[in-house]
Amino acid sequence: MKLIIGNKNYSSWSMRGWLAAKQSGLHFEELTVPIMGEGWAEAKRDMGEMAPSSGKVPILWDEDTVVWDSLAILEYLADKVGRERFWPKDDTARGMARAMVAEMHSSFRSMRQELPMNVRKRIALDDVSDDTRQDIVRILTLWAEARARFGKSGPFLFGTFGAADIFYAPVVSRFITYGVGVPGFAQAYMQAIWEHDWTQEWISASEEEEWVIEQFEVAPQ
Amino acid sequence: MKLIIGNKNYSSWSMRGWLAAKQSGLHFEELTVPIMGEGWAEAKRDMGEMAPSSGKVPILWDEDTVVWDSLAILEYLADKVGRERFWPKDDTARGMARAMVAEMHSSFRSMRQELPMNVRKRIALDDVSDDTRQDIVRILTLWAEARARFGKSGPFLFGTFGAADIFYAPVVSRFITYGVGVPGFAQAYMQAIWEHDWTQEWISASEEEEWVIEQFEVAPQ
Repeated sequence: MKLIIGNKNYSSWSMRGWLAAKQSGLHFEELTVPIMGEGWAEAKRDMGEMAPSSGKVPILWDEDTVVWDSLAILEYLADKVGRERFWPKDDTARGMARAMVAEMHSSFRSMRQELPMNVRKRIALDDVSDDTRQDIVRILTLWAEARARFGKSGPFLFGTFGAADIFYAPVVSRFITYGVGVPGFAQAYMQAIWEHDWTQEWISASEEEEWVIEQFEVAPQ
Repeated sequence: MKLIIGNKNYSSWSMRGWLAAKQSGLHFEELTVPIMGEGWAEAKRDMGEMAPSSGKVPILWDEDTVVWDSLAILEYLADKVGRERFWPKDDTARGMARAMVAEMHSSFRSMRQELPMNVRKRIALDDVSDDTRQDIVRILTLWAEARARFGKSGPFLFGTFGAADIFYAPVVSRFITYGVGVPGFAQAYMQAIWEHDWTQEWISASEEEEWVIEQFEVAPQ
């Protein structure tokens, strides 16, 4: 398997695809393409030639199979290795986890645009827009409920590390970068995500990337 | 099981959730709430009291389980009745179907805003924006590839009716409403969707709804 991703410092959707690949336990190669600027335009052309894709990262190749969206990648891998590796066993918990992941996949547009992922940077914010504040409150509400109802068996949203954590890990990175104030339970959750081996591996790699941009538009996938 | 949906004429995400419930073969009750105006504000408050949701439709209730996103509803139901009812058996076809559905779930924003679903109406368009045109071309490209590579066994995207058709059915309705010109293979596909029993049931119900609005913003879920 081959996973095409963008820059580790900036590409939040790539981080989700990569964490999903890690979680699968399957061996995969990484191929990094710069997610914007001249390199990106060229990479996009190459990708267009290589595979029918939306021109966005991440993309998973598995022999003849091309899967070009982070959530589809996660589900495709879950099909291969078993759903339990990604999703809670309990029906009610799994229903909530699936809805939380889907909401992350389609929503929080204001927060995504106003607080783009920038893993290695710390940026002091004076204020955020009302829409972004609403997004943040909604996310904290979801985290609180998942932790309170289903998080007994471990420090992650549904206890053990899974799909919901994979989808909200880049949000943790954003909250850290922009110093978003959060209640204690959320701090503890963020710490668990941040100290996870794979997050640490991603952070280290992001710090080694030479290519830096100050501001950019995030490709939605 | 209970499915909360918006107006059948306008709510494209409700249509996806409803088709997914039909496809599951499980018995479900429908509860319709008007998706905007005063009724919507009130319904939103009620829903907020009933369940932790994003304030959007569709929402599936299954005993204690609340699932508040169309894609999550589909996957939750697939967990219950078996994946094969929704997704192709072949790995490569399923990888593509999953990616197409995920792309519909997060993208085509321009088309969704410019050509809102309005099942019973026919509206002549002079022109569409470049972004919407790009969305349309991308959708037709995806349909063409799915039909050509995986559609041999029937008239639907991957042969038999499944998740990808459920997610693109409201697009078929839009293309019909706004008279979007499409090539022959796409006309045949659209006809198959339109003549499907469940689409016909949805259309008939939409025609009976009394409540009409001329223009509105579509809730993204």
